[in-house]
Amino acid sequence: MRIVGSGLLGTSIGLALREHGVDVILDDISPSGLDLAIDYGAGRRARPGDAPELVIVCVPPDVTARVVAAELAAHPAALVTDVASVKVAPLEELRAAGADLSRYIGSHPMAGRERSGAISARADLFIGRPWVIAGHDDITYRRAAPVEQLALDLGALPIEMDAAEHDRNVALVSHAPQLVSTLLARRLGGATDSAVSLAGQGLRDTTRIASSDPELWVQILGANAAPVVEILRALRDDLDDVLGALENPTAPGARRTIAETLAGGNAGVARIPGKHGQASHFSQIVVKVDDTPGELARLLTEIGEAGVNMEDLRLEHSPGAQIGLAEISVLPEVEERLARELEGRGWKIVGAFA
Amino acid sequence: MRIVGSGLLGTSIGLALREHGVDVILDDISPSGLDLAIDYGAGRRARPGDAPELVIVCVPPDVTARVVAAELAAHPAALVTDVASVKVAPLEELRAAGADLSRYIGSHPMAGRERSGAISARADLFIGRPWVIAGHDDITYRRAAPVEQLALDLGALPIEMDAAEHDRNVALVSHAPQLVSTLLARRLGGATDSAVSLAGQGLRDTTRIASSDPELWVQILGANAAPVVEILRALRDDLDDVLGALENPTAPGARRTIAETLAGGNAGVARIPGKHGQASHFSQIVVKVDDTPGELARLLTEIGEAGVNMEDLRLEHSPGAQIGLAEISVLPEVEERLARELEGRGWKIVGAFA
Repeated sequence: MRIVGSGLLGTSIGLALREHGVDVILDDISPSGLDLAIDYGAGRRARPGDAPELVIVCVPPDVTARVVAAELAAHPAALVTDVASVKVAPLEELRAAGADLSRYIGSHPMAGRERSGAISARADLFIGRPWVIAGHDDITYRRAAPVEQLALDLGALPIEMDAAEHDRNVALVSHAPQLVSTLLARRLGGATDSAVSLAGQGLRDTTRIASSDPELWVQILGANAAPVVEILRALRDDLDDVLGALENPTAPGARRTIAETLAGGNAGVARIPGKHGQASHFSQIVVKVDDTPGELARLLTEIGEAGVNMEDLRLEHSPGAQIGLAEISVLPEVEERLARELEGRGWKIVGAFA
Repeated sequence: MRIVGSGLLGTSIGLALREHGVDVILDDISPSGLDLAIDYGAGRRARPGDAPELVIVCVPPDVTARVVAAELAAHPAALVTDVASVKVAPLEELRAAGADLSRYIGSHPMAGRERSGAISARADLFIGRPWVIAGHDDITYRRAAPVEQLALDLGALPIEMDAAEHDRNVALVSHAPQLVSTLLARRLGGATDSAVSLAGQGLRDTTRIASSDPELWVQILGANAAPVVEILRALRDDLDDVLGALENPTAPGARRTIAETLAGGNAGVARIPGKHGQASHFSQIVVKVDDTPGELARLLTEIGEAGVNMEDLRLEHSPGAQIGLAEISVLPEVEERLARELEGRGWKIVGAFA
């Protein structure tokens, strides 16, 4: 197996394959980047006579097609894939360059972090994540199979989706959200200390991904511009409607415009599947937890002792406070029993919700 | 103490005051709403001869001034406050109506939930949260003191801020983020199953607050329209710049525009203070945790046994996966020791970051 590019994804794939005992050849145009990934144990340097059967190109979107073409030429028997966040642009570039598409199939593991580089890599990055395989008509099912197997070996869930559909989908669930979070966070640039002192969890959540790497995202957004523009134009139309309503909030219809926008947001959120791929339908119990070592552990231990499986856990913190609240998601049928058990053990339940 | 309005905030304040043994008189124009809050133990019904020293008006923003004026008139010796999310509009309405402002001071506890109503109330809602006291020139320091004391009694952190500054600040950290999250979530309304199947944590975080109550938010946004419009107009200008760049991503300067927008987002996020009021400067350790009862509890117990105080905990889930990753924030000086200890106990560390 040969991996070209030792950034977050290349190094993570290398680490995962090494765990499976696969012989991983690593390459990178940056000698120091390559050294670092090898130090982390993600693979070995190329040697004369290496004849990889599968090449995984993990370089920035801008240079993906060029590197794929070079790998197809250098390894005439190998299947080549890439992991770029956009799929139409590299495929078209390769087609235009006359590359052998019977040995290329693009893919995209839906896994990433706000942090980049080999230093942030982890072998478990792909576990349980969708891994899109961007099918096209020039490669046979049989020839493409090793890429699907790679996704499965790394614990990911392979999903077939053509390049155009992939690009439209990620524009909606990843690229547009990235830009919107960025645009919102940007407004904080000139914020007073007094304003940011009032920041709550809502602001933190909406702006978290705005700390992502600008260099990478310039490439992603540039390479998937058309679908992103389509979404952002529709968003701007909605924004203009809301702005119009807010500029004259007592005008007839203004409140209705704002209300319908908000209701549309409610409906949109409901489309997002929860953990385990299903829409969220857990009940929540909110428990007060002192901010002392071991408190949360004791809570979770006692939940385990009650024989209840916790589906999710969210901590709510308050700036300056020494206590927190733990919101525990459980199946609705065990909620009442768990609340009783915890109260019996002296925990303070401050809320319970279906 | 008299509380008018038995929604989320009124009931939560009632519950907290009852814990302190305070005699709480509850009132609500909805008899069934009032019954529910009394059932929850948030206070008692009004009786002839009640003479409250402090009245807390916890009704929707639209009717806040009217109810405050009625309470000022009905209880001529009482100090009256309110907890509405906007502060200029009620103050101006009261001033215009000739209300006795020497006995009124608005306030705003920065605490809330996506869920509303007495059913979501909790006595701990205010602990550690900022509680803005909107000072004005018609009330003496001494006369206003009980409102500050109320905030302190409920565990909140009182912050003095005049009404206009408050409204500008919450427009930035709360109202604009609410609308932006809504506008983004709205785009998911027509999303295909194939698209939402690719949703990750970024989309979940950016759209979480979009599930908030439209009826309440129409009032908040309507009552704080001007500062929200100012922020959203600036955001729209940035959006237009990015759209212009994305419509022709290879034009000179286009990539620079996108990069500078993204970098501006990075800078904005950095302005948000972390837990305990300081900018976040913890280190993170990411540990693999099987999705079986007791696993996470065991991890936290062993962190406690290592004598390390966990500053924050974030769980990462993957749709369809049966394992998760726990991202543990600790002080940088203990990170290395904790990672060693956990590995020694057989935990799989999949990442460690400064």
